[in-house]
Amino acid sequence: MGIRAIVFDAYGTLYDVQSVRLLADELCGAQGALVTQLWRLKQLEYTWLRTLMDRYEDFWQVTHAALLFALAAARIEATPARIDRLMEGYLSLAPYPETAAALEALRQHKLAILSNGSATMLEKLVLNSGLAPLFTEVISVDRARHYKPHPACYALAEAALGVTKSELLFVSSNGFDVAGARNYGFTVAWIERGAPQPDIPTLRDTYRLLRGREEQLGLAPEYRLQRLTDLVPLLRQL
Amino acid sequence: MGIRAIVFDAYGTLYDVQSVRLLADELCGAQGALVTQLWRLKQLEYTWLRTLMDRYEDFWQVTHAALLFALAAARIEATPARIDRLMEGYLSLAPYPETAAALEALRQHKLAILSNGSATMLEKLVLNSGLAPLFTEVISVDRARHYKPHPACYALAEAALGVTKSELLFVSSNGFDVAGARNYGFTVAWIERGAPQPDIPTLRDTYRLLRGREEQLGLAPEYRLQRLTDLVPLLRQL
Repeated sequence: MGIRAIVFDAYGTLYDVQSVRLLADELCGAQGALVTQLWRLKQLEYTWLRTLMDRYEDFWQVTHAALLFALAAARIEATPARIDRLMEGYLSLAPYPETAAALEALRQHKLAILSNGSATMLEKLVLNSGLAPLFTEVISVDRARHYKPHPACYALAEAALGVTKSELLFVSSNGFDVAGARNYGFTVAWIERGAPQPDIPTLRDTYRLLRGREEQLGLAPEYRLQRLTDLVPLLRQL
Repeated sequence: MGIRAIVFDAYGTLYDVQSVRLLADELCGAQGALVTQLWRLKQLEYTWLRTLMDRYEDFWQVTHAALLFALAAARIEATPARIDRLMEGYLSLAPYPETAAALEALRQHKLAILSNGSATMLEKLVLNSGLAPLFTEVISVDRARHYKPHPACYALAEAALGVTKSELLFVSSNGFDVAGARNYGFTVAWIERGAPQPDIPTLRDTYRLLRGREEQLGLAPEYRLQRLTDLVPLLRQL
């Protein structure tokens, strides 16, 4: 097939959005888990709802609005200090343990990010994690003023990287993003990070219960991997 | 202002989507609550994601796909009997306790439903609940092949009812629907059914924690009511 470029989703795929949890625990006490879950769920909802209503705002604004909702729902006062620190936390999310090793091992390909994040958010994220030098391009959907899974977002990648659809492998662990990339026509590898056991369901599990499983949208990924480093043997075959 | 028509959302506003919970408990045991919550959350997600990807399927198909996801996430076997009975349950959801009284008291206005439900689902729902004679029109977004909050859905109401935007009051308890109707230009009354206490958050609360609160989308409703019968004094003023 001749893959020349590997395009990664950022939040949830390369970077762990749940890594703000420690900060949320510090700032919101026992409600830290709840705030973390609601924040991420609402953040995604707002990207979808704003795209549907054609009322685009950038991901920093969406993330801020989602945080306000999450704090109100958890009955935590939305003080400027709390908001500022949590928002800043989004600029230094932890990469998953295998992220750096996987990217290093794939360097003979063009590596890129295609993310909902604003250009500024993504720039800080890759700088703070020390991964910036590994990427040929860091593409924000802000250029299209739509959010994933709208096709206009995925359409940004080929032009930015100078490759054709068939030369590009798209990598995401978000089910809606897998579906969106497949819908657009990309070949997709799904990083299946696994859902929690539903035996004692608490809100702490909500995000993974809702997202850590293949979506029923009729757009299955071509490849299913457990972690980013599994891309290395896959790319040898493609 | 001269309101001539009152247009209601169906699921969550006139009819309690949580009323399938008893059936889910019977069919899914201790996972009934989890299945009920995930089912509704995924059902809405899939309406948004399909609209964003321009891959419309009707609400019966979307509801079925969401149920498959929910059962898989809860590790409940998706037997035909279980699926059939839960799907049938969606055709006889219980109206909220005040629904019939509120509609009766508002009969001097044209009353209508504008819902994501397919035409067949809505027809059975209003028949099974005995409320069919109260509605001038039961409008399915299926005519627009988009889901709320896409503007094409709301645009169906004026033509179907022969009224102008300013003669129409839109009523919903779903925050995304309030935002969508306001975005389209309708006057909106939000039935604020209230969110649960977040002190002991379990998945049982997820739906209400995520939906039972005003959205942070910059599209606040003009009126906030506690229950449908509060529309009666409001309409006297309008």
